[in-house]
Amino acid sequence: MSRPAQRRPEYHKINKDLFVLTYGALVAQLCKDYEKDEDVNKYLDKMGYGIGTRLVENFLARTCVRRCHSYSEITDIIAQVAFKMYLGITPSVTCNNASKNEFSLILDKNPLAEFVEELPAGRSSLCYCNLLCGIIRGALEMVHLAADVTFLQDRLKGDRVTEIGITFLKKHDEKKHRRKK
Amino acid sequence: MSRPAQRRPEYHKINKDLFVLTYGALVAQLCKDYEKDEDVNKYLDKMGYGIGTRLVENFLARTCVRRCHSYSEITDIIAQVAFKMYLGITPSVTCNNASKNEFSLILDKNPLAEFVEELPAGRSSLCYCNLLCGIIRGALEMVHLAADVTFLQDRLKGDRVTEIGITFLKKHDEKKHRRKK
Repeated sequence: MSRPAQRRPEYHKINKDLFVLTYGALVAQLCKDYEKDEDVNKYLDKMGYGIGTRLVENFLARTCVRRCHSYSEITDIIAQVAFKMYLGITPSVTCNNASKNEFSLILDKNPLAEFVEELPAGRSSLCYCNLLCGIIRGALEMVHLAADVTFLQDRLKGDRVTEIGITFLKKHDEKKHRRKK
Repeated sequence: MSRPAQRRPEYHKINKDLFVLTYGALVAQLCKDYEKDEDVNKYLDKMGYGIGTRLVENFLARTCVRRCHSYSEITDIIAQVAFKMYLGITPSVTCNNASKNEFSLILDKNPLAEFVEELPAGRSSLCYCNLLCGIIRGALEMVHLAADVTFLQDRLKGDRVTEIGITFLKKHDEKKHRRKK
């Protein structure tokens, strides 16, 4: 994976508001279904994982990104191509450790929570956008990369920005080696 | 309401695939929650109604459509502006009766069901996209128009096209009169 080589026509584009409101309805439904925030978070992540495993195929086909050679390159693609394409924003990326397998995506604003002013009453541990973590995890898994993906900061919880942490769990080289077999 | 006078910037646009897959996850969740298709359909409609009541404000602000003078004009706006904006398609419109209050939106393809090949097993009465009916109903309600909105045909049920029927329940003139009071 690397830079996008080609863009598909305009008809794949829609206004995001219908999506944002539908996502809100999904979260509200899960809050009805599960009493504990942790269970809602887990379910959103699981649901996102399933979506990510399907979305990645579509993403690779549409963007024609080429093979990446580092976790840093992969994270840049997620931020600059995938987020831009699916959510209309480009988070900034920071690398959080010397071994260069921990990254953060920093979102100044989060379109998925655009119509949400605050978390619902009694839902202070809810990771409202946890679907995103699951999607990233699922998509990475499909390109043979295991990762932990979690919210480190969330504006809905009073933080200044929203921050998604991605920790790659295996060395890129190992994976390449294994795929050659 | 009439023609759009102004378009907002590109950053409101996203690729629809994430939305389509997330919608699929929502329907799957409701199928887990409710045993009967009728209950899932009702719930999707209800959920859509809530979304429609919020979306219409945003729609009117973004498109600057002017006041419509007939049901036919309103239906055209739904098909040509709203569907185009939120789902990237433009259904064709037919008027189904002489008193001109019954219309159909004919969708040659339905992007919301793009990744669905067939209805889940044992779910033959499911109106997979019933959220759309609720959204239209909710949005119309907010501009003081009562309507019945239902699927008349559905490609997921083997029909050649997908057809959404809109029956306006009150005369436009009556409403205008009432709003002047």
